Amino acid sequence: MNHIDLNCDLGESFGAYTIGLDEQVIPFITSANVACGYHAGDPLVMKKTVELCKENQVCVGAHPGYPDLMGFGRRNMAVKPEEAKAYVMYQTGALKAFCDGAGVRLHHVKPHGALYNMAGKDYALARAVAEAVQTVDPELVLLALSGSQMLQAARDIGLPCASEVFADRAYLRDGSLVPRTQPGAMIEDEDEAVRRVVRMALEGRVTALDGTDIDIKADSVCVHGDGPKALAFVEKIRAALIAADVEVTAF
Amino acid sequence: MNHIDLNCDLGESFGAYTIGLDEQVIPFITSANVACGYHAGDPLVMKKTVELCKENQVCVGAHPGYPDLMGFGRRNMAVKPEEAKAYVMYQTGALKAFCDGAGVRLHHVKPHGALYNMAGKDYALARAVAEAVQTVDPELVLLALSGSQMLQAARDIGLPCASEVFADRAYLRDGSLVPRTQPGAMIEDEDEAVRRVVRMALEGRVTALDGTDIDIKADSVCVHGDGPKALAFVEKIRAALIAADVEVTAF
Amino acid sequence: MNHIDLNCDLGESFGAYTIGLDEQVIPFITSANVACGYHAGDPLVMKKTVELCKENQVCVGAHPGYPDLMGFGRRNMAVKPEEAKAYVMYQTGALKAFCDGAGVRLHHVKPHGALYNMAGKDYALARAVAEAVQTVDPELVLLALSGSQMLQAARDIGLPCASEVFADRAYLRDGSLVPRTQPGAMIEDEDEAVRRVVRMALEGRVTALDGTDIDIKADSVCVHGDGPKALAFVEKIRAALIAADVEVTAF
Amino acid sequence: MNHIDLNCDLGESFGAYTIGLDEQVIPFITSANVACGYHAGDPLVMKKTVELCKENQVCVGAHPGYPDLMGFGRRNMAVKPEEAKAYVMYQTGALKAFCDGAGVRLHHVKPHGALYNMAGKDYALARAVAEAVQTVDPELVLLALSGSQMLQAARDIGLPCASEVFADRAYLRDGSLVPRTQPGAMIEDEDEAVRRVVRMALEGRVTALDGTDIDIKADSVCVHGDGPKALAFVEKIRAALIAADVEVTAF
Repeated sequence: MNHIDLNCDLGESFGAYTIGLDEQVIPFITSANVACGYHAGDPLVMKKTVELCKENQVCVGAHPGYPDLMGFGRRNMAVKPEEAKAYVMYQTGALKAFCDGAGVRLHHVKPHGALYNMAGKDYALARAVAEAVQTVDPELVLLALSGSQMLQAARDIGLPCASEVFADRAYLRDGSLVPRTQPGAMIEDEDEAVRRVVRMALEGRVTALDGTDIDIKADSVCVHGDGPKALAFVEKIRAALIAADVEVTAF
Repeated sequence: MNHIDLNCDLGESFGAYTIGLDEQVIPFITSANVACGYHAGDPLVMKKTVELCKENQVCVGAHPGYPDLMGFGRRNMAVKPEEAKAYVMYQTGALKAFCDGAGVRLHHVKPHGALYNMAGKDYALARAVAEAVQTVDPELVLLALSGSQMLQAARDIGLPCASEVFADRAYLRDGSLVPRTQPGAMIEDEDEAVRRVVRMALEGRVTALDGTDIDIKADSVCVHGDGPKALAFVEKIRAALIAADVEVTAF
Repeated sequence: MNHIDLNCDLGESFGAYTIGLDEQVIPFITSANVACGYHAGDPLVMKKTVELCKENQVCVGAHPGYPDLMGFGRRNMAVKPEEAKAYVMYQTGALKAFCDGAGVRLHHVKPHGALYNMAGKDYALARAVAEAVQTVDPELVLLALSGSQMLQAARDIGLPCASEVFADRAYLRDGSLVPRTQPGAMIEDEDEAVRRVVRMALEGRVTALDGTDIDIKADSVCVHGDGPKALAFVEKIRAALIAADVEVTAF
Repeated sequence: MNHIDLNCDLGESFGAYTIGLDEQVIPFITSANVACGYHAGDPLVMKKTVELCKENQVCVGAHPGYPDLMGFGRRNMAVKPEEAKAYVMYQTGALKAFCDGAGVRLHHVKPHGALYNMAGKDYALARAVAEAVQTVDPELVLLALSGSQMLQAARDIGLPCASEVFADRAYLRDGSLVPRTQPGAMIEDEDEAVRRVVRMALEGRVTALDGTDIDIKADSVCVHGDGPKALAFVEKIRAALIAADVEVTAF
């Protein structure tokens, strides 16, 4: 039987600030990427989010980002590989403490925002991230963009990894994402997006922007819980996967 | 044979900023309290400091503080016990990642500055700190002021703990420190300070401000590495302890 | 004709985080306290908020707080008067730059949260805050709790000041607020609260918790824009004041 | 008579952390770039540094940087022009408050580190910085790299500007700095560096890396006060300029 994971960023609130409908999206997902206090999240939020994941039997992952709370970790920063390595170790270790405290296993690490994007393309940075994860715990899974340098780096050092796909993004023939600045980057039609996810899960294939069919490894689909529309979309994807006999389960 | 530990705060540098003569003081100490990025320290500094401790066979402890970099964690903050608990878990977990990475065991936790002082007097806060430490790893030792609420809380929940004494501070008859605002709070004479430490190690006794002799549990002496004078004082204490047949070793 | 100001904290959003219904509450208020990046707010938010105030002809005030974003400036911190003075100068100057840029005059300064509360009771801290405001611009008005040390300090150094009252808080016989931990601290009945505000504006009198009538100087009422209920309450207060022939205008 | 300014970054200390020999370098310089709390500096340090400048009759400039204390503002960040504009307004306004408080005029703005470098090459970013400065006070001078986009942007909007040269850096034929990664980027010989500064001040000419003589506008030379060697170099430059009848004075 085919299977796929639905992952979502959780625990992005900070102090008096709330972001995300964590409690509403969690019943539909199978793994969570929990912010670790650098680009979002704080210790109280992390503690509560890990507990929420435990109650809902959702796998907990660390979601480390750049030290840029004001930019929500979305701005590229010229961080050196050794700095990135230390930042990922720090944040992953911090989240692991809350997992240890709650008696759940830390399951994976998915870098956030600009770190995810930059390490997806830059092997030296990707390698630093993979080594950081392996250093904290060699059984952790690195969750990263299908076809990215991070997956390559993980394989090179023998770190378990999982390949992430996007429901609402178009792909180029080489398996990379169509840049957001380019026309056709987003799959605007929801039903089309859902059909693409189901096909990626069943066949490991997707139609690229130029119309060719390409191979794609789909271990996990990235979903969002930041509004009612996003919630409805997660439900739709989940229902369609189940209807197509794809098991929705963590990688 | 009697024994005592010499502990020192290390890893307090941050980014381009350097504090402390870590490499010079480390040969003389037996355990280090490593700043964890809240009041001081950053991930690169933490990584390097843990490696420095490993090379010098010095036990590594976490040194969590309040989130107040501008005040170096020295300003009292009205942090709730549940906040303090989460902050200590976060910082201890972060440091543990660097210990795991370096293949050394995280040995103890000693709260920093205002958190040390406030949790030393406030049982609810002390309890939160002790629970945080136990939650991360029940074998960790909580290092705290002799006679403080933190030691009480540690004993109450079955967490290992160690009692810290100060060479350059005077004690009241009840075993508490003479407040710094009071005359006689500091032991100004270095030789006198050294003699007091040796006696605390050998006899578990010290002369209080009012002249009475009191019991004091001295598992560890707090020393400093923030300048040439502090370094010379550490050497002197260490030499005097060894001359008195006290083994200088981690608790 | 009697008059009173309605002030509200605005510009508390930060980066990707949104707090407050600024655009909805602004038609009903006459002065705004704009967060300055320490406990809330960021430069982009400050710029936008000043422009929003300008469009709505609402007076702009600086709302400086403690450097505690994680605690939203609500936690007491043992900040020295000289530190508080420098923090208030820094934040007020930063906001003034956006006022200068928008061609509006910075009108007042109202400290936030824990700084407001602590400086309300501690004369040395209050004096530091008042001096900071006067140093930036001697024509700025310090807005502070009726009967507080901040108003005293402002008068002592010849700084203009305005006395703030609360619609939903009960007062003790000496004119101070009933502590929130005490029964009866909050005026739960909205109509009662509105009536009290109108009377404070018209007569400068309010009924204290013990039933006695006391004098109270009411230059401005603190209102909130953080939810639909708060919005409705502001509208109600405004309507009642106007119905009672009280002019709603900035101090 | 020819004249030139010697500018130095001051006020880079933060909380318990000290950087720079501010009090030792200040007698030799004519203008100071004071850090504003984003990449370095804090309100107490800013206040003290402005007062130090006043005592030494050194012109005070704002030295705004990226919000990256951990990286000391030296790491490139993908900050949008509108963000950069708001950050520069914020920091410049904050420093201006301390100038107003000390009764000295804020004289110029020189962006720091990565912001200086990025805005030197990117016109949109440069324009945002220039507009920010003009918005705070149209008489402020923007101090930026000779031949940079920042000077171009300043001229385009009618903002006063000054051209900065480096004693220890080689120039390409087009007047830009030889990148540090390239051989010959640094002028290693101190006497050679001093001779180049004197010639830039007297003749407005410098020998480029390829041996050709090029025009260069030298309003100000960047010097450093971060160690004894840097201090000695400043003294040497100053002495050589005076010996060559170049007046050392602020632009």
